[in-house]
Formats: sequence, C-alpha cells, structure tokens
Amino acid sequence: MKWNELGSVRCSVARSVAVIGDRWTLMVLRDCFLGVRRFDDFEARLGISRSIIADRLKHLVEEGVLRREAYQDRPVRHEYRLTDKGLALHPVIMAIVHWGDVHYADEAGPPLLHRHRACGCDFTPVMTCSACGESVTAREVEVRAS
Amino acid sequence: MKWNELGSVRCSVARSVAVIGDRWTLMVLRDCFLGVRRFDDFEARLGISRSIIADRLKHLVEEGVLRREAYQDRPVRHEYRLTDKGLALHPVIMAIVHWGDVHYADEAGPPLLHRHRACGCDFTPVMTCSACGESVTAREVEVRAS
Repeated sequence: MKWNELGSVRCSVARSVAVIGDRWTLMVLRDCFLGVRRFDDFEARLGISRSIIADRLKHLVEEGVLRREAYQDRPVRHEYRLTDKGLALHPVIMAIVHWGDVHYADEAGPPLLHRHRACGCDFTPVMTCSACGESVTAREVEVRAS
Repeated sequence: MKWNELGSVRCSVARSVAVIGDRWTLMVLRDCFLGVRRFDDFEARLGISRSIIADRLKHLVEEGVLRREAYQDRPVRHEYRLTDKGLALHPVIMAIVHWGDVHYADEAGPPLLHRHRACGCDFTPVMTCSACGESVTAREVEVRAS
C-alpha cells in the first residue's frame, strides 16, 4: 500500500490518518485549538518552513477541517478557522495531549492546564461509553465488522 | 524546528506526536488494538515494506509503547504486545476511529462496530470531564500555562 492509498481503504483509522496522520498537521491542529489563525503566527510558533505550513493548511482546507477567510482587504489577508468538522477533532487532540502529559511531562508537570468552563474545574479527558456513560478501557471493548 | 526536535519542545502534543505522529505508526497501533501481534500479520494487513514496519515497531518498543516477546524457540520468533503505556493510547485511537466513522464512512456505514463489554451495548466514545463527568466540547475548554 502506498501512503496516498490510505484514504481508499475501508477503515476509519486509515481514512482519518490520510487527513490528520502527519506530524506537522497535528501540530497545526494543536495551534488551531489554542486560537492561532494566521499564517505568520503558525510560522512563528512552529518554526518550520512556510511551504510545509502552506501545504498542511491547504490540505486541511480541502478536507473541510479548516476554512480560509479574509480578515483584511488591502492587501487581502486570510485566516484559518476550524470548521465543525475540525472542532470534532477536539477529542483526538485532547487524548494526545493527555497521553503526553502522563507519559512525557517533565518535573514541572503538564505544560498546559485545561479548565472545563461548565464546571469551573481543571480536568483531564476521560473516554466514556455513549450507551452507559461509564469510562471505557481497551480491554472492555469488543470489535466486530459491521 | 526539525522533526526530530519535536520531542524536546515543552508541549505534550509535540512530545506525543514525536512518538505516534506518523501515518504508519498509527496504522500499526490500530492493528495492535485489533489483536495483531506478529510481524508477518502486520505486513499482510498493511501491505507496506518490511523495513517500514520494522522501523515503526522498533521505535514503539524503544518508547515503551510495545514490548517484544519471544513466542517460539526454534527458530526464535517474537511478537509485539501493547504495554500499559501503549494501552493508554486507546482513547487516541478510538477518537480517530470515531472521527473517521462520522466524516468518512461510506453508505454502508462504519466499517467496524465497538461493543462495551461492561454494558453490552455498541457505543461511540464520548470525551468527558474528569471533574464533573459531563461531556466536554472544544468551546467549553479554557487553556492556560501551568
């Protein structure tokens, strides 16, 4: 299998990975969830080449994860905002953050804290079952073809 | 920033992405959660070169996500099993699966169904707050430096 064939496999991981399974794409998405919208800000934060950033942003716009909107007329300048489809990646990014916090934080602890506005508390993400509401671990899940 | 410097940034996404933010690594992890353990089975399922698979498995073993265990003596053959640190990636993979199911499933629906053994129902993963137990959306989260 070639990398660009991943999207055609009948597997939801493969299809998602074809869109977001790239190092810099995930870093761009992290920044989007932190409120970054402008090309120059992505560049300043990531410190990578403009062509890599442009390529990743273009791909995310084509896939409907980000939308490109003008925020200035003369000269025209655009910013990149998460669509609903992009916002739906929040559990993916939060799960990645949490795994990093647990397994790769240094002595100072997690670099960022997340507060749940609805309850006012700092929190970590917990994956729960849509049917019973209880937390779910890997060993409790049985997978079958649909 | 170079790709191999990501792990040294004080950011949990960057540090996680340095370990799992690779297309084939994510596909290998998907297979691990589906019970695949042997090199030849990864190869048969992924249809990619043995060197790519060997490289990704080696990296995951070095990072303590998988452990390599002999399952046969003559000749010695090894299998790859998720460690506790690897099992902790389950919410990441489930979140990726779910996003793919919602946004990329074809007319036949999600390719795989997930049953929560504890309650017996098919489910989708819901990200909830560790403090109040309610579901959390991106707009409800406030991020600050620790």
